[in-house]
Amino acid sequence: MRLVVIGGVAAGTKAASRARRLDPDLEVTIYGEEPDVSISECGLPYLISGVVERREDLVARTPEEFSEKGIRTLAGHRVEEIDPEEKRLVVRNLGTGETFEDSYDRLIVCTGAKSVVPPVDGADLDGVFPLRFLTDTDAIARHIREHSPEKAVVVGGGYIGLEVAENLTALGMQVSLVEAADGLARAFGPEVGETIEAHVKEKGVRVFTGAPVEAFVGDEDEGRLRAVRFGGREVEAEIAILGVGIRPEVALAKAAGAEIGETGAIRVNSRLKTSLPDVWAAGDCVESTDLVTGGPTWVPLGDTANQMGRVAGTNAALGTGDGGGLEFPGVLGTGIFKVFDLAVAGTGLSEEEAEDAGLSPVTAQVTTVSTASYYPGGQKGLLKLIAAGETGRLVGAEAVGETADKLVDICATAIWGRLSYPDLVNLDLAYAPPFGPALSPVIQAASVLSNEFDRREGLRATE
Amino acid sequence: MRLVVIGGVAAGTKAASRARRLDPDLEVTIYGEEPDVSISECGLPYLISGVVERREDLVARTPEEFSEKGIRTLAGHRVEEIDPEEKRLVVRNLGTGETFEDSYDRLIVCTGAKSVVPPVDGADLDGVFPLRFLTDTDAIARHIREHSPEKAVVVGGGYIGLEVAENLTALGMQVSLVEAADGLARAFGPEVGETIEAHVKEKGVRVFTGAPVEAFVGDEDEGRLRAVRFGGREVEAEIAILGVGIRPEVALAKAAGAEIGETGAIRVNSRLKTSLPDVWAAGDCVESTDLVTGGPTWVPLGDTANQMGRVAGTNAALGTGDGGGLEFPGVLGTGIFKVFDLAVAGTGLSEEEAEDAGLSPVTAQVTTVSTASYYPGGQKGLLKLIAAGETGRLVGAEAVGETADKLVDICATAIWGRLSYPDLVNLDLAYAPPFGPALSPVIQAASVLSNEFDRREGLRATE
Repeated sequence: MRLVVIGGVAAGTKAASRARRLDPDLEVTIYGEEPDVSISECGLPYLISGVVERREDLVARTPEEFSEKGIRTLAGHRVEEIDPEEKRLVVRNLGTGETFEDSYDRLIVCTGAKSVVPPVDGADLDGVFPLRFLTDTDAIARHIREHSPEKAVVVGGGYIGLEVAENLTALGMQVSLVEAADGLARAFGPEVGETIEAHVKEKGVRVFTGAPVEAFVGDEDEGRLRAVRFGGREVEAEIAILGVGIRPEVALAKAAGAEIGETGAIRVNSRLKTSLPDVWAAGDCVESTDLVTGGPTWVPLGDTANQMGRVAGTNAALGTGDGGGLEFPGVLGTGIFKVFDLAVAGTGLSEEEAEDAGLSPVTAQVTTVSTASYYPGGQKGLLKLIAAGETGRLVGAEAVGETADKLVDICATAIWGRLSYPDLVNLDLAYAPPFGPALSPVIQAASVLSNEFDRREGLRATE
Repeated sequence: MRLVVIGGVAAGTKAASRARRLDPDLEVTIYGEEPDVSISECGLPYLISGVVERREDLVARTPEEFSEKGIRTLAGHRVEEIDPEEKRLVVRNLGTGETFEDSYDRLIVCTGAKSVVPPVDGADLDGVFPLRFLTDTDAIARHIREHSPEKAVVVGGGYIGLEVAENLTALGMQVSLVEAADGLARAFGPEVGETIEAHVKEKGVRVFTGAPVEAFVGDEDEGRLRAVRFGGREVEAEIAILGVGIRPEVALAKAAGAEIGETGAIRVNSRLKTSLPDVWAAGDCVESTDLVTGGPTWVPLGDTANQMGRVAGTNAALGTGDGGGLEFPGVLGTGIFKVFDLAVAGTGLSEEEAEDAGLSPVTAQVTTVSTASYYPGGQKGLLKLIAAGETGRLVGAEAVGETADKLVDICATAIWGRLSYPDLVNLDLAYAPPFGPALSPVIQAASVLSNEFDRREGLRATE
């Protein structure tokens, strides 16, 4: 029995390892386009500044390590065609340019996502870089080494853009952060975006919002970046890094006839099986289920990709398509990032998303502190809870500050467990003075929610 | 309508404030024996060393602040008798020694817990101190100021004893920690106890386990502590602090005829009403329900006391005894403490408790790390999950190390939500390199559980 996995990184390598672990007789091959099959992509921004010191640190597993597990890896190979009837593949060796055929009994598609490049003049200039693969950081590092840029533009105020802005600042560059929307980190509510903006400005980053990039302007002699144009102005820059978003890479699966979902990612069932026979999919190329709304969603994140890989690898090994095997229940889109000294995290729906989903959200926001008030070293932050107006169920949370990771993980687990505000006020969480206030900010915010629901109840009763 | 609250601190002050907030016409009085009604007791160990600088920092609210809320506080007053038929109280003013009568329409008993003093010779010597009230720290501080002790014995290897050992070490004392049981922190499994023991020894604390104290030995001239005797040996000490445990303070309620539960604490219903008419109870004097076993339990912790105070205060204000109002669902006994550089946390049942409860526990233990492997500054720790063998439900968790608070809070929320290991492996938690590994240790440990359950399933299938 022959299993082929297209794509490495989090989903592909996990799927291959899991399948092989369950069925040691399985013949497993991973094809990957990039020179390295197993990369910790979330670490890329930190390799630019040297916080992560060595390129090898981000190579999670070498071909030799896969080989020891009985997994064959072919890096630098692009699968160009899937024939789902004959179960055959056309593969191009990117080194030699030659193509060859391969076959599979079972296939897992982990083609990931690709960077969006803004469709403006000069996006192909020397000095303008996406940041998606280890090869992108290689190119960025080379550019920095050769040209010692002093001024940088980061395009995109989402988490990648913010992480890059921090790491370029750490190298001593003057960084301008340029965002098309009216605020930073628009996946969150405006309170969070404003907190971030104030913080990065304090750290010396120039922030331009409501500023879609119009052109990258080159030094005409050398075809090298000289400035970035937006909102009628030009800001000088010898390097620009794009963090404007990614899209699922579905061309291969689509050409083979796989159903694509409304989010633009590959549609799968709860076993992560695609519409093609004996073809599963996992990771950033796959559409998922939003655990709050029950609708389709697309959340390209490394930890989720790894979890999907476990499920797809198990089911591919067992041959479970519609029943049996493992289910992947869905996602909450829980995420976190650090920008300078600020941790920013969220899970579930934002207030705006809850509004759009017809959930008539009720929200509560509290100031958080990371120790008891009298214990030294405490830092302030904020926590916002979003509850469904009819049921009182928690549907989302956002946090900024030193304990944001803890608070959002508590909330993500609570949403998983379908808890409502009356549960949250009595949640039994760990307290001691060095770790937070006597009542967790989650409990405090739930009390505010409770008072607000009581007030509405009272209003209804007197109407 | 007149509400009397007996006892302040976390439960009493919260109950009074909450009741008054819901019913501004309520006449509310708090009687407290100690000189200060509203104290952050969890901060006491840190006041000894000066980590918490000022005594006032631990006075959460002053009588004036209560007065502004319309709450009368009478500190230094002991309620000596409750007449539940006539709804009358006998109160002693501890300053003048005089007694007087008072009456109530509704009563909340928050008499808390008292320190256990080992029944051995010399426990009343000058230099031997319990640590329960702010007045105890006052006495300890005075003793340290006057006698500059260089050698200290801390009796009890639970969290109070460990916190005290750290804070006395910080003052430059040579600290011996003496524990009757065979290991430290016996509420946890032996892995945790051994990790703690190694850590405190590294910090210079001498540890004696399996060593019940036999006597405190005095300098006969002055009646002052000179040494502590245990296991046939004498260890010199000019100060000894007792952290051997506490017991619920129920004498007053019991004398009035209130039912006492099998844990020795006051029995209440889900509305925190006692068996006496119009009498509620909250905090360390109250028996609670274990959310895992459904049986009675007694967990005296400040955050739980506060949460109970909210429920009792609400129900006393509304007069809800058996129906309506708020319910207090129960506790998991979630707790955390810091000892030197180590955070130690737990929730739910230990493996031993799960065994005793007939849950045939299956456990998984993983090494945790507080950042992604390639991100600098990560520290190692451990996480142990305890699941019920029949259902796979999470019933307990223990963690040591930098992210112990987060990991245990995730698990406490998961137990609340009645999640099982198949839920936990797909939990959607927040990941970025500075905050932990790509898959949370909770997910990693759940995967280990999953493999173990699969293995047992396989064994059963082949039997």
